[in-house]
Amino acid sequence: MTQPKRQLHLNAFLMTVGHHEAAWRFPQTSLTGTWELEHYVTLAKAAERGTFDSIFFGDGPALQGDLRYRPVGRLDPTTLLPALAMVTERIGLIATASTTYNEPYNLARRFASIDLISKGRVGWNIVTTAGKDAAQNFGLDDVPEHHHRYERATEFVDVCLKLWDSWEDDFLIGDKAKGLFADASKVHAIDHAGKFFRVRGPLNVPPTPQGHPLLVQAGSSEDGREFAARFAEAVFTAQQTLADGQAFYSELKQRIAAFGRNPELVKILPGIVPVIGSTEAEAERREAELAELQVPAYGLRQLSSLLGVEIDESYLDKPLPDLGPVSNVQGHQSRFLVITDLARRDKLTVRELLVRLGGGRGHRTFTGTPEQIADTLEQWFNAGAADGFNVMPPLLPSGLEEFVDHVVPILRKRGLFRSEYTGKTLREHYGLERPANRYASGHEQASKAS
Amino acid sequence: MTQPKRQLHLNAFLMTVGHHEAAWRFPQTSLTGTWELEHYVTLAKAAERGTFDSIFFGDGPALQGDLRYRPVGRLDPTTLLPALAMVTERIGLIATASTTYNEPYNLARRFASIDLISKGRVGWNIVTTAGKDAAQNFGLDDVPEHHHRYERATEFVDVCLKLWDSWEDDFLIGDKAKGLFADASKVHAIDHAGKFFRVRGPLNVPPTPQGHPLLVQAGSSEDGREFAARFAEAVFTAQQTLADGQAFYSELKQRIAAFGRNPELVKILPGIVPVIGSTEAEAERREAELAELQVPAYGLRQLSSLLGVEIDESYLDKPLPDLGPVSNVQGHQSRFLVITDLARRDKLTVRELLVRLGGGRGHRTFTGTPEQIADTLEQWFNAGAADGFNVMPPLLPSGLEEFVDHVVPILRKRGLFRSEYTGKTLREHYGLERPANRYASGHEQASKAS
Repeated sequence: MTQPKRQLHLNAFLMTVGHHEAAWRFPQTSLTGTWELEHYVTLAKAAERGTFDSIFFGDGPALQGDLRYRPVGRLDPTTLLPALAMVTERIGLIATASTTYNEPYNLARRFASIDLISKGRVGWNIVTTAGKDAAQNFGLDDVPEHHHRYERATEFVDVCLKLWDSWEDDFLIGDKAKGLFADASKVHAIDHAGKFFRVRGPLNVPPTPQGHPLLVQAGSSEDGREFAARFAEAVFTAQQTLADGQAFYSELKQRIAAFGRNPELVKILPGIVPVIGSTEAEAERREAELAELQVPAYGLRQLSSLLGVEIDESYLDKPLPDLGPVSNVQGHQSRFLVITDLARRDKLTVRELLVRLGGGRGHRTFTGTPEQIADTLEQWFNAGAADGFNVMPPLLPSGLEEFVDHVVPILRKRGLFRSEYTGKTLREHYGLERPANRYASGHEQASKAS
Repeated sequence: MTQPKRQLHLNAFLMTVGHHEAAWRFPQTSLTGTWELEHYVTLAKAAERGTFDSIFFGDGPALQGDLRYRPVGRLDPTTLLPALAMVTERIGLIATASTTYNEPYNLARRFASIDLISKGRVGWNIVTTAGKDAAQNFGLDDVPEHHHRYERATEFVDVCLKLWDSWEDDFLIGDKAKGLFADASKVHAIDHAGKFFRVRGPLNVPPTPQGHPLLVQAGSSEDGREFAARFAEAVFTAQQTLADGQAFYSELKQRIAAFGRNPELVKILPGIVPVIGSTEAEAERREAELAELQVPAYGLRQLSSLLGVEIDESYLDKPLPDLGPVSNVQGHQSRFLVITDLARRDKLTVRELLVRLGGGRGHRTFTGTPEQIADTLEQWFNAGAADGFNVMPPLLPSGLEEFVDHVVPILRKRGLFRSEYTGKTLREHYGLERPANRYASGHEQASKAS
């Protein structure tokens, strides 16, 4: 018997009617799909047809972006996932939720509930939410400081993990004759008392198929990497070049090992924006069409928001100004570096930079035939830059459907990607075990629930 | 043409495997149904077959009740409703959520999302969450004071209403050629600054089919009635006798009028626990069977929790002790009064009281044939005690199915209840208009979203 080939993982990042900022202007694009269940049903079914590991929704509790130029605002993904669980069978379902603007008891419970509803298919992309607009929806004047947010996030996830373990799997007695339903000694108060939270527990939801959701993380700052190394089971990242991708991959895997975790069990998935054409010329024509439909006023606003510095029209035909050190940035530090490096490396004017960012806000755009795209994915996968990819179609649903119909079959033929699901849960798709319960293992002092 | 007869409203209150505390001990009852999607799918479909206005889930962010004696703990209803929206077409979907342990931006958004997903079928049962167990899951030592909770709830709902209005209905331009998506002057920051909350807005979800969810309320204390009179569009209440029901109904309708609202547009729905038999003797035998399976230790714990005072085994064969004035109670003040009045009026020992409470924790049990139950419902409906009922079957699914198959047809034949849905949204089922947008009407100063 031959050793089965290492398999890559594919996640479909579903954002409004496409990742490209001008997606809505295409004739075939629905104007209102961004807020319609049916749009996401179509996407979830397409991704499942392509045996993707998972679909994924970004999120933030504020109206981000400029509605004048693009559909923004979105359904809460923790309400969308249960609906999509009803029209799919196997695909994983990942929602983003903020540790800065939620309470751990509520969020742990919500994800546990969705794991039960979806029969073990939920994942949580843990974010700390940069952005003043969100802060001001929660009584704050400005976003909490970067390190402080990650400190809170660490304790937040710690509380959630305790809550998800608070019922042992064998809690049920179910003796109808005697009237004894459950063994209360198997259901534990967690009595957490930390810097940010005091939570008594137990959770009010029983153990779920996955034990806990797949934990996903996407920040690549120093704090973000440390957080990922500690908790993440899948990592989304923006990498512009193969060399950058390799450096990030190797550095993060070392950090994971330093936490005593097996680096093979944490999947690193760079974002890719695939612009697909049946010929190279067609693909390039499509990329140019997308760029032509961009509105500079929108791009400038987004760029200013991503960098945390106001960049106005007067810079359009000049290089990006000097923005000071990244350590001043309270927002997305890693995105700041990706964008400023890209602009300097390729000597771009701001106008040119906006075109490069229009598709994926700092993620790598791969333009080419299905064969060329598959080649690049294989290259990154084999060269130690990726365990799989976060696929960010510029147009939705068409960009996802093209990827499923034309790129996935090539990856399958090369033995790099599954032809059918072998697992039932999201953890199984990512090759992960159901985690052991800390109370059942007897490693920690368990206090009896009263 | 004849004036159509006033129609009653029916809501199915779905709780675990039944409202009776011993429901799980019946041979046909699923041991694990409480946490299984399929159980709720069965219930939602049965209620829709019975053309109920809505199904409803209670909730609290803590493990309440004693797992030794009964299945407790439940899925977060805001994750269950989107799933149930996918297997039903018309029935309304009401979830309970707490104003004490949520943030208004998050909750307003979640309900708006579910309204879009369900195409206008969501309702929110607004609760302030009495109970120390919940408080201790959110960093508090004890439950916040009763009046303080209602003060917060009032501002919380006020913020939500502003957020739900923050996009005018005609925000969309959708000019693909010019690249103009929306009219930003129709999307408003709310700039709320109050005692409890500072929320800038706008919401990040567009206008929904209902404008805002049906607002439901269930507290009957002084603060609770005042809150209901101000906001509620449907009111759930526990009333043991027709006279009490009439007094509550008439008092609350007057309060509603005092707020300048039309009392006819607020539906008052007393809870009923129907114990149905094909003969009176069979119904009574069923009631006795339920009582026999009760475990006194469980009932004492529940009673202590409902009253906020420890009642131990030594009281089982004595009357309820003197508990002091209701104003000392920081929990469910109205439930305290219903229970203590019931015990005194019917001169019950604590053991007898536990039997009376086993089915519905202070709600009225109607035991009889379908005809007798329909008679009592009609009597309450016509005598000014109810606009409809919150139906709380002791066993689920069987108790709901019996009600749908045997009681509903009688109500239909008498012209008291719909035979098919005439409306599409929950508001339409309850005879309510979609509310006007405060910004579109120009009644308030609208600040432009930046």
